[in-house]
Amino acid sequence: MSENPVFLRKIQERRPAVHCLTNTVVQNLTANMLLAVGALPSMSSDIKEVSDFVARADALLINLGTLDEARKTAIEAAIDRANEGGQPWILDPVLIDRAPARLAYAKALLSRGPAVLRGNAAEIAALDPDPHALAKRTGAIVAVTGEADLVCDGRQSRTLVGGHALMSRVTGIGCAGTALIAAFCAMAPAADRLNAVAEGLDCLGKAGERAAKTAPGPGSFSAALLDQIYELSKSS
Amino acid sequence: MSENPVFLRKIQERRPAVHCLTNTVVQNLTANMLLAVGALPSMSSDIKEVSDFVARADALLINLGTLDEARKTAIEAAIDRANEGGQPWILDPVLIDRAPARLAYAKALLSRGPAVLRGNAAEIAALDPDPHALAKRTGAIVAVTGEADLVCDGRQSRTLVGGHALMSRVTGIGCAGTALIAAFCAMAPAADRLNAVAEGLDCLGKAGERAAKTAPGPGSFSAALLDQIYELSKSS
Amino acid sequence: MSENPVFLRKIQERRPAVHCLTNTVVQNLTANMLLAVGALPSMSSDIKEVSDFVARADALLINLGTLDEARKTAIEAAIDRANEGGQPWILDPVLIDRAPARLAYAKALLSRGPAVLRGNAAEIAALDPDPHALAKRTGAIVAVTGEADLVCDGRQSRTLVGGHALMSRVTGIGCAGTALIAAFCAMAPAADRLNAVAEGLDCLGKAGERAAKTAPGPGSFSAALLDQIYELSKSS
Repeated sequence: MSENPVFLRKIQERRPAVHCLTNTVVQNLTANMLLAVGALPSMSSDIKEVSDFVARADALLINLGTLDEARKTAIEAAIDRANEGGQPWILDPVLIDRAPARLAYAKALLSRGPAVLRGNAAEIAALDPDPHALAKRTGAIVAVTGEADLVCDGRQSRTLVGGHALMSRVTGIGCAGTALIAAFCAMAPAADRLNAVAEGLDCLGKAGERAAKTAPGPGSFSAALLDQIYELSKSS
Repeated sequence: MSENPVFLRKIQERRPAVHCLTNTVVQNLTANMLLAVGALPSMSSDIKEVSDFVARADALLINLGTLDEARKTAIEAAIDRANEGGQPWILDPVLIDRAPARLAYAKALLSRGPAVLRGNAAEIAALDPDPHALAKRTGAIVAVTGEADLVCDGRQSRTLVGGHALMSRVTGIGCAGTALIAAFCAMAPAADRLNAVAEGLDCLGKAGERAAKTAPGPGSFSAALLDQIYELSKSS
Repeated sequence: MSENPVFLRKIQERRPAVHCLTNTVVQNLTANMLLAVGALPSMSSDIKEVSDFVARADALLINLGTLDEARKTAIEAAIDRANEGGQPWILDPVLIDRAPARLAYAKALLSRGPAVLRGNAAEIAALDPDPHALAKRTGAIVAVTGEADLVCDGRQSRTLVGGHALMSRVTGIGCAGTALIAAFCAMAPAADRLNAVAEGLDCLGKAGERAAKTAPGPGSFSAALLDQIYELSKSS
């Protein structure tokens, strides 16, 4: 954790709402990670409701897992509403390296102006071999997560170490981590978002390190990770 | 927990089946809470199957999160079948205060005769500023849950204290709690449902208090809550 | 656990990918069980993507819970692709004894050549009163799980004891267990699949027994089960 977690403290004061259009595998962990950090999740993808939820949210998460046509329609309406209202939206191009249709869809969404793009090395490489060039070209902050995390915006970059190997043995920690970043971004003006993304990833990595000290395996690790994020939020 | 948990004991003897049309974020916790208390969950929303599942169930839960057109069609078929078979059905109007389309849908469902309506203060207030009047007008038992819980049927009312602040840091405890109430209602004749709802809420609140004594944060709290509900069911 | 867990060891070396078309209630536990054992889950049911995911997977899981028309279309495309590529696919006919439409669909899928069929006694009996005859007729290995597990292929059969009563108090352990079996099957040539299925069930049963020694109830049991599967995978 950074010495002075400014954005985490703001989350406690302002309790940002994050609307999440995310895959059904990780919806529960995503909502729980947002609640643990002090943010307020919502998840509707009903086309009749989604614009209302985005209008009242402070940030929007778009994750490309378990897509279908209805979810895609909702994603487009949600991005329209976020762009109209000026809320930052974050794209998680999960597993785009595995299916050409998903990759094409991610590329189309990139042109709509996400504030942040968060993926693992294979996912980001499927979009551009150079994350710095990708950030420059799209205007998005690019976060490449893995054993070490890289965050860049085309001008400056930050490298973060932390986390634990058990994080790759629990489904959706990356996906839920992108939602966490969305909450941090909601607390930052556009010029300060690189720092907000870095602080969010640092918070997740630190919680992972601490959780691994008590958890013998992935089942207990998942619960301990939420406990540690909650602990960090309380002591911020 | 009440001194004499009559409905909880009946759940152990009769293992009621509760069919749940609920949002995808909380399906897992909902099924696990029903299993922990001794009830049997099912969750199909396939229009070809839903009536068969409801016909064999002892109660039906309708939750309005993550709706889509197919789920709405299933909800209507399920309510028809429950009303035909005389099974009690419970409405959880989750987040209706956030989207006008969802509020309108909740109002339409209220006219179909739910046995119980369970929401937080903001959700119930979106339907009527006075829960007692709402109960009287709709014929449903109305449960308003929060730091203290109110249960009323338009003639009498009960107030319950219990629970713990960590319950608001885990997604779906309210939603899953409505499923728990459905299991309790399935054990009561119509005239005794106010007591069944109160006993169900009391069971959840007591389990929450006990879970909080051992759990340092929301991740471990969620597991401890299921453990405590199971413990209460075994000792009933 | 068998003395010599050959397939579990191969899972560690080869990290098989298992594509899962499974119900939304258990997707999270299913993915976590696969990750705990060392396999790699994916879950897309988008018709534009599903064939690509199956093409890169080592096995395919089909589970009939929370079906809809889109999922059925995806199931058919996925089975076509698996049969074309020679990947084993596993059918979990969850709750087919509760709805005639689901039973009819399971029967239609059986004719498509699953490598393994896994259900509880009521589910398997809905297809055939005699599991041995069912295996002979369909060419699938049939696994009937419960207090004791039976695995048969029409010529030979194996009986396994293990597990714990708490396994029936957590939703989706059977469903996720079928995914676990899929990972084991992916490591075996067709002639050795009976042994692979038996080893997978043995792994799950042993993990359940060990988890029950530390877990006071179903919430902590679920986490402990994943921890124990992970522990078995590391020590294999």
